[in-house]
Amino acid sequence: MASTPLIDRRNLDFVLHEMLDTPSLCGYPRFSEHGRETFDAAIAAAHDLALAKFAPHNRKSDAEEPHLVDGRVQIIPEVKLGLDAHAEAGFPAMMADAHDGGMQLPYTIALVCDAMFATANVATAGYTMLAHGVANLLKVYGTPAQQELFMRPILQGRFLGTMCLSEPQAGSSLGDITTTATMHADGSFRISGAKMWISGGDHELSENIIHLVLAKIPGGPSGVKGISLFVVPRFLVNADGTPGARNDVQVAGINHKLGQRGIVNSFLKFGERGECVGFLVGREHQGLPQMFHMMNEARIGVGIGAIMLGNAGYQYSLEYARERRQGRHPDQKDPASPPVALIEHADVRRMLLRQKAIVEGAFALAIHAATLVDIRDNDPDASKRQEAQLRLEVLTPIVKAWSGDWCCKANDDAIQILGGYGYTREYPVEQNYRDNRLNSIHEGANGIQAIDLLGRKTALADGTALKLLWRDIQASIDEAGALPELGEYSDALAVALRSAQRTSDQLTACLARGEIRLGLANATHYLGLMGHLCIAWTWLRQAAVAQRALSVAASSEQPFYQGKLAACRYFFRYELPAIEALAALLQALDATTLEMRPDWF
Amino acid sequence: MASTPLIDRRNLDFVLHEMLDTPSLCGYPRFSEHGRETFDAAIAAAHDLALAKFAPHNRKSDAEEPHLVDGRVQIIPEVKLGLDAHAEAGFPAMMADAHDGGMQLPYTIALVCDAMFATANVATAGYTMLAHGVANLLKVYGTPAQQELFMRPILQGRFLGTMCLSEPQAGSSLGDITTTATMHADGSFRISGAKMWISGGDHELSENIIHLVLAKIPGGPSGVKGISLFVVPRFLVNADGTPGARNDVQVAGINHKLGQRGIVNSFLKFGERGECVGFLVGREHQGLPQMFHMMNEARIGVGIGAIMLGNAGYQYSLEYARERRQGRHPDQKDPASPPVALIEHADVRRMLLRQKAIVEGAFALAIHAATLVDIRDNDPDASKRQEAQLRLEVLTPIVKAWSGDWCCKANDDAIQILGGYGYTREYPVEQNYRDNRLNSIHEGANGIQAIDLLGRKTALADGTALKLLWRDIQASIDEAGALPELGEYSDALAVALRSAQRTSDQLTACLARGEIRLGLANATHYLGLMGHLCIAWTWLRQAAVAQRALSVAASSEQPFYQGKLAACRYFFRYELPAIEALAALLQALDATTLEMRPDWF
Repeated sequence: MASTPLIDRRNLDFVLHEMLDTPSLCGYPRFSEHGRETFDAAIAAAHDLALAKFAPHNRKSDAEEPHLVDGRVQIIPEVKLGLDAHAEAGFPAMMADAHDGGMQLPYTIALVCDAMFATANVATAGYTMLAHGVANLLKVYGTPAQQELFMRPILQGRFLGTMCLSEPQAGSSLGDITTTATMHADGSFRISGAKMWISGGDHELSENIIHLVLAKIPGGPSGVKGISLFVVPRFLVNADGTPGARNDVQVAGINHKLGQRGIVNSFLKFGERGECVGFLVGREHQGLPQMFHMMNEARIGVGIGAIMLGNAGYQYSLEYARERRQGRHPDQKDPASPPVALIEHADVRRMLLRQKAIVEGAFALAIHAATLVDIRDNDPDASKRQEAQLRLEVLTPIVKAWSGDWCCKANDDAIQILGGYGYTREYPVEQNYRDNRLNSIHEGANGIQAIDLLGRKTALADGTALKLLWRDIQASIDEAGALPELGEYSDALAVALRSAQRTSDQLTACLARGEIRLGLANATHYLGLMGHLCIAWTWLRQAAVAQRALSVAASSEQPFYQGKLAACRYFFRYELPAIEALAALLQALDATTLEMRPDWF
Repeated sequence: MASTPLIDRRNLDFVLHEMLDTPSLCGYPRFSEHGRETFDAAIAAAHDLALAKFAPHNRKSDAEEPHLVDGRVQIIPEVKLGLDAHAEAGFPAMMADAHDGGMQLPYTIALVCDAMFATANVATAGYTMLAHGVANLLKVYGTPAQQELFMRPILQGRFLGTMCLSEPQAGSSLGDITTTATMHADGSFRISGAKMWISGGDHELSENIIHLVLAKIPGGPSGVKGISLFVVPRFLVNADGTPGARNDVQVAGINHKLGQRGIVNSFLKFGERGECVGFLVGREHQGLPQMFHMMNEARIGVGIGAIMLGNAGYQYSLEYARERRQGRHPDQKDPASPPVALIEHADVRRMLLRQKAIVEGAFALAIHAATLVDIRDNDPDASKRQEAQLRLEVLTPIVKAWSGDWCCKANDDAIQILGGYGYTREYPVEQNYRDNRLNSIHEGANGIQAIDLLGRKTALADGTALKLLWRDIQASIDEAGALPELGEYSDALAVALRSAQRTSDQLTACLARGEIRLGLANATHYLGLMGHLCIAWTWLRQAAVAQRALSVAASSEQPFYQGKLAACRYFFRYELPAIEALAALLQALDATTLEMRPDWF
């Protein structure tokens, strides 16, 4: 099954060019040099490079995970070779300005390129995605000197980077970090503290590592309002860009994870000798808002990682189900009849349809969200920019958390289809699952995403963010309503939309009354409901495109569009109905969890 | 957290002595020497031994999994020490007749003892549970000589055993096995073929390994009707019980699994030199029914393994949530206020309640099913024996598959509660998950369990098996209905019962019309619905006991009973309502999966 594709290119084209019209982004001046051809070429280059340089060591970097020898992180050589090829091809700068040597691609297309690397090898891709994040943040908040010394080498693929937020005692609760930053006579800072869960925290894969570190300047406000952001390079950089002394940041330990083993995850100590030099990025005490400025993109990145791992399991189990022959139809009583392919069994088809519905539904939503980033950053119309931002704020926790949860379930189905073989490390689907399990935990655990969605996003701009979502969904319902074949689905989505609206109204009213604990008690289920609503929405949009295309499509294209309609049907029949029970629970403001007492367990 | 208990002993007492009355089994002559004291003593001994000799190497045997050196299986020495202690304490013979040196315990109590070993170390416990199965089967179908030569040494803890069913090309589809057995002049057989996924297939943990092998005698019927059962010892055994020559069965490879790594899983070749000696067990061509005679117990064993792994994750994450302080209540705006324990957060409580509801609900159902085994095998009243068997037939696939699916979800919650820590191998919850994931695959994949339940069990004795379940559930509804505090739950269970009945009627009518593929297309969701019904039933039973006990319980006992009521409430409010969507899908005889075509994917 070496021929298993990294991605269903036909589906990608469908999302980018049939459901969406991504080349229309080229109407913005920033992307005016681009067109469908350059977008497609960038994606094809990412695909081929991912297949050639990232996929081949995916299993090896899991089996032979990074380890410490005499305090130095050892990583199999294929990782550096893959990253070097990635840099050589210019991908670290795919979003950067042309005058910085960048490709100046839209975020949407850059995300699709990242997706290729993620589905091939999410661990090695992780180094590159972190570097993107650091460069993007420095682009917005860094001084010209910081950009020159730290950002430009990242864009050139010479440096990598990290995000240092969590500490051993403070993961979800960043207000409780204790790392400090003390100003020095020359205006630089001395950083002191420990950071946990730092992906890419120490290695020799690049000339330097640029850590973005959250720390508190003594005397500042307590909690999150006293957090500042610092750039802390592994090696200091001289003013002329040449490497300086080793900075006082040390790897103190490596975490041994369930999955994503190929990307070293470390416990870092800053300033053990009191000599850790850091440079303030942006303004004092603005560290968290600055970091969160990049958070939507980071979280969509987590979502796309989850989706591409879901995709990897789906593609593999689909090929397996086509090839492996086992058992007979239940009405076939002749034991001498030949076994049928697994894909002939209804329950296997159910698991394949479920994976397809989850993965392709979430992918379409994530790409839709990505286009909002480009609109927000480029549209000449300020109100369009603002509306895109509001839409993005609501969709981000859904793309992150729903994809993380449900694409793990998709991976679980892939294991089940392979049966005993799926349970062994000789087949890739168990690694897909292990790798994916992280996505519900990092970049804000999914419970935090749910509180963000219900507690913050629903109230944004006096509820306008939510109203925009309702309006967008209603528009799709109206549009699909013109197609009689889709009447069942547009009706069902209309019912679901009303349930979501009623539920949102009840919960926001509860929160507005000041019953915060009660209103947020079932936030996870609210996110689940909203996620199903949005995925059903993307399926209705996809079905409308497919239904229209069917009547004019060549016969070779018919199966693809029929597949889209079948997956839509699956999601509406098998998955969407689950939200009614959630809506009832949420509307009842159920207090079961609040009333449970710790000593009753 | 070394003090984390293997099991909540208070809950165990509740199930065995408050919800059920297991000492009443001592009314049967076979168990008349026993009483609550001997039952409790056996369980306590199992617990202490499991804690001392199985738990300490649970992580090590995962990290240092069995491997081949020069064709010999290498296993860390702690496994053999644990098994030796298990044998020394007499557990291999806990169900055996006293005159065979056994403890003559009921199956129910033996299962609870096994549960202690499983929660401590499911891999090492696996060797013992397989040996039980082989001994039990030989007890029923073996000749006196086979019992003497092969069964008795298992009871003495000197031999271990395996079940050799699957082949590389035939997992779920046993009718397609190609291993052959040819009769030899002396009445013994020569076995030739290959068997896959053989747990405990080769090792030096015991003096001998007794393989039970399914094979076909040439010239017999095709399919499952031509399968016979053979005993194939690793070493031949002389008539006086002394070890004979090495038999021609060889380990040809070891599978590297996601979890349960401590129990070697192997690919075995029988008769590579044409000299593999096997002995027919029972009658020719009766291999599968004979093997299935033990299947209910084997599948309840899988269920209890899943439950105890779910329990291990629950207990660990509960302790962690009590100790780890992180974040504040959402209405606490003062960042200087101290962080609260994780257990204070509503979403963490939700995940703890979910684990409790799943694990304790499934445990109560499994133990209830186990008592049916004892009634079936011991009741003097033939109609009671028959009814117990019918009840058991229906409950077995539910105990196996529902527990396998949902206790994995419970383990997933445990990982989420621990967050980043839960994702590392420094904490045990990720191993619990990996170990547990097997239980939906082996001993009949859960899709097969669902077809067994819907396609076979609903029709058993003209539907009497199902009617007995309805009657039992109705009796619990009636009983709980007398308690006004439980009115919400007894009403909800009555509604769920009617949904299940209507759904069953529709599906069985469809099957009776000969629409087999359509009727079975959504069997997995039928099992899901029936599973939720049965777990809700056990929660109502538990709640009724707790509610009655509350009014008379000492204050120190109140939290325990309140916890039972809260978990019942959780299951009825958060989980049970999901079945209405399943019932609607099933009653509509939805054909989405059947109509999907392979080329549409």
